[in-house]
Amino acid sequence: MAELPHIHSPADLKALPQEQLADLAEKIRQDLITTLAETGGHLGPNLGVVELSIALHRVFNTPKDKFIFDVAHQAYVHKMLTGRWDKIHTIRQYEGLNGFCLRTESEHDCYGAGHAGTAVSAALGMAVGRDLRGAEDENVVCIAGDAAFTCGPTFEALNNVAAQTKKFILVLNDNEWSIDRNVGAIAKYLNQINTHPTYAHLHQTAAGLLEKIGGKTIRRIAGKVEESAKGLLLTTNSQPSPTTSVIFEEFGFRYYGPIDGHDLPLLIKTFEFLKTQNQPVILHIITEKGRGYRPALDDPGKFHGLGKYNIETGETQATASPTYSQIYARSVTDFAKADEKIVAITAAMPGGTGLSVFKKEIPERYYDVGIAEEHAALFACGLAVQGLKPFLTIYSTFMQRAYDMIVHDMAIQNLPVRLAMDRGGLSGDDGPTHHGLFDIGYLRPVPNIVHMQPKDEDEFVDMLWTMANYEAGPIAIRYPRGNGPGVTPKDKPQLLEIGKAEVVEPAGEIALIGLGDMFVMAQETRDLLAAQGIQAALINPRWIKPLDTAVLEQFAAQCKVICTFEDHVLHNGFGCGVIEHLHSAGFTTPIVRIGWPDEFIEHGTIPILRAKHGLTAENAVVKILAALGR
Amino acid sequence: MAELPHIHSPADLKALPQEQLADLAEKIRQDLITTLAETGGHLGPNLGVVELSIALHRVFNTPKDKFIFDVAHQAYVHKMLTGRWDKIHTIRQYEGLNGFCLRTESEHDCYGAGHAGTAVSAALGMAVGRDLRGAEDENVVCIAGDAAFTCGPTFEALNNVAAQTKKFILVLNDNEWSIDRNVGAIAKYLNQINTHPTYAHLHQTAAGLLEKIGGKTIRRIAGKVEESAKGLLLTTNSQPSPTTSVIFEEFGFRYYGPIDGHDLPLLIKTFEFLKTQNQPVILHIITEKGRGYRPALDDPGKFHGLGKYNIETGETQATASPTYSQIYARSVTDFAKADEKIVAITAAMPGGTGLSVFKKEIPERYYDVGIAEEHAALFACGLAVQGLKPFLTIYSTFMQRAYDMIVHDMAIQNLPVRLAMDRGGLSGDDGPTHHGLFDIGYLRPVPNIVHMQPKDEDEFVDMLWTMANYEAGPIAIRYPRGNGPGVTPKDKPQLLEIGKAEVVEPAGEIALIGLGDMFVMAQETRDLLAAQGIQAALINPRWIKPLDTAVLEQFAAQCKVICTFEDHVLHNGFGCGVIEHLHSAGFTTPIVRIGWPDEFIEHGTIPILRAKHGLTAENAVVKILAALGR
Repeated sequence: MAELPHIHSPADLKALPQEQLADLAEKIRQDLITTLAETGGHLGPNLGVVELSIALHRVFNTPKDKFIFDVAHQAYVHKMLTGRWDKIHTIRQYEGLNGFCLRTESEHDCYGAGHAGTAVSAALGMAVGRDLRGAEDENVVCIAGDAAFTCGPTFEALNNVAAQTKKFILVLNDNEWSIDRNVGAIAKYLNQINTHPTYAHLHQTAAGLLEKIGGKTIRRIAGKVEESAKGLLLTTNSQPSPTTSVIFEEFGFRYYGPIDGHDLPLLIKTFEFLKTQNQPVILHIITEKGRGYRPALDDPGKFHGLGKYNIETGETQATASPTYSQIYARSVTDFAKADEKIVAITAAMPGGTGLSVFKKEIPERYYDVGIAEEHAALFACGLAVQGLKPFLTIYSTFMQRAYDMIVHDMAIQNLPVRLAMDRGGLSGDDGPTHHGLFDIGYLRPVPNIVHMQPKDEDEFVDMLWTMANYEAGPIAIRYPRGNGPGVTPKDKPQLLEIGKAEVVEPAGEIALIGLGDMFVMAQETRDLLAAQGIQAALINPRWIKPLDTAVLEQFAAQCKVICTFEDHVLHNGFGCGVIEHLHSAGFTTPIVRIGWPDEFIEHGTIPILRAKHGLTAENAVVKILAALGR
Repeated sequence: MAELPHIHSPADLKALPQEQLADLAEKIRQDLITTLAETGGHLGPNLGVVELSIALHRVFNTPKDKFIFDVAHQAYVHKMLTGRWDKIHTIRQYEGLNGFCLRTESEHDCYGAGHAGTAVSAALGMAVGRDLRGAEDENVVCIAGDAAFTCGPTFEALNNVAAQTKKFILVLNDNEWSIDRNVGAIAKYLNQINTHPTYAHLHQTAAGLLEKIGGKTIRRIAGKVEESAKGLLLTTNSQPSPTTSVIFEEFGFRYYGPIDGHDLPLLIKTFEFLKTQNQPVILHIITEKGRGYRPALDDPGKFHGLGKYNIETGETQATASPTYSQIYARSVTDFAKADEKIVAITAAMPGGTGLSVFKKEIPERYYDVGIAEEHAALFACGLAVQGLKPFLTIYSTFMQRAYDMIVHDMAIQNLPVRLAMDRGGLSGDDGPTHHGLFDIGYLRPVPNIVHMQPKDEDEFVDMLWTMANYEAGPIAIRYPRGNGPGVTPKDKPQLLEIGKAEVVEPAGEIALIGLGDMFVMAQETRDLLAAQGIQAALINPRWIKPLDTAVLEQFAAQCKVICTFEDHVLHNGFGCGVIEHLHSAGFTTPIVRIGWPDEFIEHGTIPILRAKHGLTAENAVVKILAALGR
């Protein structure tokens, strides 16, 4: 075969002879597999959209045309085809490519993402904006996975599309997985379309329903059903037929599909056809998550997104000690075995949250509701009304989706829902969309909510146990991604007193208050100060709300400087609460704070980013000495 | 007719002879019309559900059975039938009945609400909780208006129902209105079902599709379509038939309807039938918003929720001066006439936000997206990408729904979306679900967002003008419900400098910083202090973020005490930000704060609630004097 020229831009791609496209797809796959083995990343989703991405860039013209990728972790191929192939090895590395689309990274990334379910809405805004500008020759193409159809915002958007624009292309990339296997009625419905035996028949023969696109026929569900096809479209309960895709027709879309999302010539011809249409269209394509790489096909959940792996075997390195997520899931599962009231809820993240163990051991009280955080929170409230003990397990950043429900349904009603906020703090290589840096800010103003963070694994289990036994209202815990300091939990957890801090070292002229994972940095600071002959007291606050005001006041009276440490933005964060209380109580003790500044933090490793932004013991010492006037 | 006995409980209702039920419905209507003429309230929605509420309580047994009302502003009749008829004249009054369901008000209110779209999820939680408890004889009945089907969470819930329970009754109360007339594909779809001419025919004749319930037939869409009915179910584009209701069947519900929601005997018999079913069912009823009261039928939007009115004419009292909402809409509409880039977005609230004037005068750039705040925010982002200037107009409390989008889509991408947050501050008689007391708390931690609040109407227009001309990123304004102090805006608005406070009176030993509508209280405090011989400086901060740190530092240096005033919770509020900054900058000047405490504030008039919770100039003086040590 002819050697593939390097693709520096969509123009290079368009110049490539048609017969080389399959080689290009193969080369992209090989580069992804070898590159991500070193960098980690969303391998499975990207292997699934190689042909789709090529076809899109072959037919459309970004940046004039807009591609809006839902979640956008499947945009690596798009990045490679738009001038960033040379940098794909830097993906998710500090100062390298972001793992999602990013407007500041390329003019070809018209819209960033990171959370699911936003693309149809944003694309509709762009389509309407195009219409208002009168730029009718511009295309807006929204690429969303089937998981996006478990998200409420997607439906809110679908409800509006047909009323607001005529030119709108929605690609439903159906691989039957979100991060884990998809759940619910819509997933079942799509699966019925894809697997129904009459489909192939219909696809081939029911001429009245098919349109010819570039020599191939493509099925379209017509509002007016031809007599000849009636038999195919009618359905029984046990064997639903593809006619069920009228759902999309009811939303005002013309539905095309399902077609093989790895059939590159068909994709290209279909897009050529769709871009001529003057009505919202949905193209349903079937793709294989992990296509072309056996380990990813065998375990799509694992290869959705992962760290380094062995190319031959697909093996990843196990962490030496259990992560917070693993400890969480193990503990709650164990508690639930002894307490029938405990139920666990995840929003499509049994793997990430560790809850797959709960799913396996207590399936009857495990609920994966899809990428539907609002529903998850409300569902938990309903369970709490019935006297159950729901553990609502959602990353800090995704809990933002349920904020209104936290305020309204949990807090106003004072329902004892347990909020387990994984990835509370900097998430690292996923970047700003995944950092969990705002949860203290948004929870502390809300009455009735208890909020805490553990300093280590043992205390974590005590806190979970305390949550399991707390019935007075909503209670939240934030805990970081990855591993803690490695303190093995004791055999039997103990109840902690709500609002009571742990004074680890009472003596000192400085008080170091280290929240959660930042307690370690407080310890390091203590050691650095000790080396300079300054003795510092050490406090593990445990509780973000209610604060242990007695301990705060004791050390404000005792010490010359207080230093707080938190893995959160400083604005409206933990230290802000400390200042607010102590100042209001009349103390003038200087309080210096270590935490994240008022800017979005980029992606990179946690140590690099902490060092860059001043979250270090060394910086704490500098600030403390300055406050001491030394 | 026999005199109606008083209904003190659902048991009394059940004891009533069947032939008196129509009289009861009439009496309830009359009581609602006369009572709400004095109290104000959600008249139209409640007039629409009189028969429904009677039928529900006739058939089911609360509190054992659970009724979950979506939004719950249509629960007045339910309240009257569950021991609260005597108190219905106190509705929405301080210490009277709440305008929504409230768990603390009655055991018959199993779930509170106030925001739309939560009921299906919460009800599913209760159904699953019931199943886990093995209490199979308990019924969970969710009552949701058609507007709930424009909300994402409803769809997230629908996606989960069939997978998680078998016994679930969803009543779709279809009156074609949310607060305003419903929008989007779902509304169109429901309308097609209701108005299609073949429906009546089908309802009467297609035996295979009908089930007999208490002597009347009720249509059900069957998965397996009888041969004899095929002709009726097939459809053309121009005339869709009721078969389109397979949407609900695809979600795993058995669909019944549509039936007349004012046919009390039919409703009762239908519920008797539905409670025997062991599969999720949806009953689609058609009701008239405002039924039985001509003015409400003539103007359903106005009578959705309103203040006092004249019973004969339906007239309400106009406010003497324009409200903030009216000024907002007038200004933005005027700006938009001169600037084609300005577009206005509302989430089903053209009336409440005042935007009906924009709709009337510039319909081509007006977007009502339904009760879909998440989509609204994303849609605005898409428009901003295209260079348009979206004014996203959503009450502060409802903006909580879009929090994740504010963080992720607006702030991370720094897109210039204008957030107009009406009802920022205490909303008064609607109570805790409608107060806008958290927006400073949840916005201040988020980088890139500018946030402000005007002290009067003139400044308000300047701020809106500044927003219209601000392109650097997201910019938010909060403004209160109702009227301002009555300052007529000048002819031509002027641009304000971002982050620059207005020093109204520079001299004084005390600094009074009054944010927004609380500036008036700062003025009153100034006068009270002056009467005691204490001169106070007066500052209108204008900007919540960025704070005018130079002005803050100047007065911290100059004054003995600073007092901040805000219509927001103190935790993570405006004054908290002032403390945070000044403390961090090394100032020890005492700062006292006037604002809402860390508890949910009940319903009542704003003056009553301010007085009760210490938001008064008198209390400010007490605090200031205490800080002065006098």
